[in-house]
Amino acid sequence: MVATLIAPPQAKSQPTVASKPRQREKLAVIDCDIHNAMPNDETLYKYLSPRWRRHHELIGGRGAVGSYYPRAMKNAARHDSWPPSGLPPGGDLPFMQQQLLDAWDMDYGILNCLYGVGGELNLDFGAALAQAVNDWQIAEWLEPEPRLRASLVVPYEDGELSAKEIDRVGGHPGYVQVILVVRTQAPLGHRKYWKMYEAAVRHDLPIGIHFGGAGGGPITGCGIPSHYIEDHGGMPQAFYAQVISMVTSGIFELFPTLKVVLIEGGFAWMPSLMWRLDQSWKRLKEEAPLLKRLPSEYIRDHFWISTQPMEEPTQRHHFLQLLDQMNMNDRLMFATDYPHWDFDAPDRAFPVELPLPLKRDILAENARRLYKLAKI
Amino acid sequence: MVATLIAPPQAKSQPTVASKPRQREKLAVIDCDIHNAMPNDETLYKYLSPRWRRHHELIGGRGAVGSYYPRAMKNAARHDSWPPSGLPPGGDLPFMQQQLLDAWDMDYGILNCLYGVGGELNLDFGAALAQAVNDWQIAEWLEPEPRLRASLVVPYEDGELSAKEIDRVGGHPGYVQVILVVRTQAPLGHRKYWKMYEAAVRHDLPIGIHFGGAGGGPITGCGIPSHYIEDHGGMPQAFYAQVISMVTSGIFELFPTLKVVLIEGGFAWMPSLMWRLDQSWKRLKEEAPLLKRLPSEYIRDHFWISTQPMEEPTQRHHFLQLLDQMNMNDRLMFATDYPHWDFDAPDRAFPVELPLPLKRDILAENARRLYKLAKI
Repeated sequence: MVATLIAPPQAKSQPTVASKPRQREKLAVIDCDIHNAMPNDETLYKYLSPRWRRHHELIGGRGAVGSYYPRAMKNAARHDSWPPSGLPPGGDLPFMQQQLLDAWDMDYGILNCLYGVGGELNLDFGAALAQAVNDWQIAEWLEPEPRLRASLVVPYEDGELSAKEIDRVGGHPGYVQVILVVRTQAPLGHRKYWKMYEAAVRHDLPIGIHFGGAGGGPITGCGIPSHYIEDHGGMPQAFYAQVISMVTSGIFELFPTLKVVLIEGGFAWMPSLMWRLDQSWKRLKEEAPLLKRLPSEYIRDHFWISTQPMEEPTQRHHFLQLLDQMNMNDRLMFATDYPHWDFDAPDRAFPVELPLPLKRDILAENARRLYKLAKI
Repeated sequence: MVATLIAPPQAKSQPTVASKPRQREKLAVIDCDIHNAMPNDETLYKYLSPRWRRHHELIGGRGAVGSYYPRAMKNAARHDSWPPSGLPPGGDLPFMQQQLLDAWDMDYGILNCLYGVGGELNLDFGAALAQAVNDWQIAEWLEPEPRLRASLVVPYEDGELSAKEIDRVGGHPGYVQVILVVRTQAPLGHRKYWKMYEAAVRHDLPIGIHFGGAGGGPITGCGIPSHYIEDHGGMPQAFYAQVISMVTSGIFELFPTLKVVLIEGGFAWMPSLMWRLDQSWKRLKEEAPLLKRLPSEYIRDHFWISTQPMEEPTQRHHFLQLLDQMNMNDRLMFATDYPHWDFDAPDRAFPVELPLPLKRDILAENARRLYKLAKI
C-alpha cells in the first residue's frame, strides 16, 4: 500500500533551478461501495404497508443475510464506525457525512444497501421490503445529501417483480444502479433473471453484483466448507461462476447495452477466467450459439470492477502485471467498503504506485463516466 | 503452442564455421495423466466378489461419473483413440502402448483410472469396486507394462475404508498415488477424509485430485448452471475451494509429509488464490489455529500441478508472468490427458518457448522426483 495522493515528483536528473515547485494535485474521489444501514424496524415500518408490517411482526424476515457466517454482517464494522447516536454503523447520515464524505472530500459516494430483500424466500415480502428500502433511501439519504447516489434493491430471485421495482423508482435521479449479491439461487445467466436485465437496460442502470449472500446451496463446487476464512477467501469462486454464466448465456447479445459492476470480489482471478473461458468456448461454441465473439471480449465490454478489496501480491510488480493481463484499466473503480472492517482508504488503497492518469481514472473518472456524475 | 523438443538454436550472430552442428537433445517425457478404461462389465466381474457382482447386476452402479454432463465421459475421447479391437478408448493396452508410450517414446506414464468408485453412494459397494479396479490394474496394466505406474482408486467419501484400501495395495511398486476427483461431497479439509491422508502418508503416496466428479451439490457457489461450458470453463472453482479447504483445515500441520497433485485443473488461478488467501488469513488467523505460516507457503510446499490443460494467454509473455507469480516451476508436471479430446502433445503443450532446463523439469524431471521413478 502506498500513501500518496500527489503527483509523483519530477525525475531527479532534471534541472530544478528554473522550475517552480510543482503543484500538488488533489485527486477527486468517488467511492463506489458505501453501506448504509436500516437503523431499526421502526424506521422500516414507516415505509412498509400495514399488511407487510404485520407479516414482519408475525413471521419475520431473514434480515441482512450477507453470508452463511454472522461475522460478515454482525462484526463486520470498523470499530470507529459506530456513531455516537447509538445507531448502527452506516445508519447515521450526519456521522457518515463527517467520517467519510467530508473527511476524504469525496465528490460522490454510491450507497449499496445490503438489507437482504433479495434473499427473502417469500418473494412478495421481498418485493414489499424492496419498496420500503428504496423509498427510505430516497427520503433519508438521497434527498438530504446531494453527494450521495444509491443502488436500488430488488427481489432479484424474480425477474418480473424486480423489473416492476426498477420501473417504479429507476427514474429517480439518485438511483444509478441495481444491486444484487453474488450468491444468488441460480447463476445470473438463467432466464428467470432476464426481465430484470430488460428493465435495467430500459433505465440505463448497471447491475451491481456485491460480495455475499446465501443462495441456499453449498458455497463451493465441492460441498459445504467449515470456516469463514474459506467463505471470505473463496468469494471469487461465486464471481467467477457469475461472469461465466452471464457471458455464456448470451445475455449481452440479448441486451447489448447491459452493464455489470462486480463489487468487492477482487479481480486477480479475472485473467485466468478470461484465458480459460476463451479456450473452452473455442471448443464448445455450439453450446453457446448466441455468442459472436470471444468471451473475454464480452467481459471487457460489459463489466466494471470495484477495487476493494484489491489482491496484494507479495511482489509488487506482479500487481502491474495483473493490470496488464486484465486490460481493463478503464473499468476499475475505487471503493472503500465503508463502514466495514476491510475498509480501503483512498490514499492507501493501491499496493503499488500507479501512473497519475490511471490513479485519476480509478479513484474517480471511471465511475464518473459509468454513473454519469457531473464534474464538481 | 510451440512445436519443439529440441534445444533452441544458437544465436544467429555467433560464428558457425568452426562449430560442429549442435546435437539435438531428445527430452525425456513422463505423462502424468493417462486414463485407462475398464473395458466392460465382464472384465470387472473377474475381479469382483460374487456378492458385489450380484449387487452390480441387481442395483447397478453410478458408473464412470466424471461430471454432471455426459459429454465429459461419453464423447470425451479423441476420435483416433478408439482401438481397432472394439474396446473403448484407453481400454486396450497394446493400442495405448503403440499410440502413446511408443509414439512419444515416454519414460513413464501414470494411469489415473476414472472408473467412478469414489462416487458410489453405497460406500461398501464403492470399496468393493475399488478393490476390483486396483487388482485389475495390477494384473492387466502394471505387470505387463513396466513403463506404467498407476494411481490407486479409493472410496474416498469414507476415510477409514479408503485407508484400508491404501494399506491393502499401497505397497505395490506400481502404485505411486491415490486418486480422487475434485468434486467431492465435502471440501477435502473435512475430518472425514483425514484417515485417508494418514494412510497415504504411511505409504508415502501423494493424493492426486483430478478434474471432474459430481459430489451431489450445485457446482458453483451460486447454484446450478445450465451449460457444460460453465462446468468445463468453471472447473477451477472446485480446485480453488479444495486448496483453500486443505490449507486452512491444517492438514499439512497434522500430516507434514502429505503431498497433493492437482490434475487437469489448470493453474492460472493459483496466484490470485495465494494472494487472496494470505490476506484473508492475516485477518482471520484465529479461525485457523493450526497454521504457522502463510497459506501460500503451505501451497508451495505441499502441492504439485499437472499441465494439461494449460491456460493459453492471448499475449504470450503473460504465460511467463504467470509462472513467475506462481513460483512453482519445480512442481509443474507434464500430462497429456490421453485419450481425451483435449489431449496435449509433448511437443506442442507449452504456449510459449520455455528455457530448456525448465522444459526438462516439466516434461519429466519434476514427476520423476515426486513419483521416485528411475532414470532410463
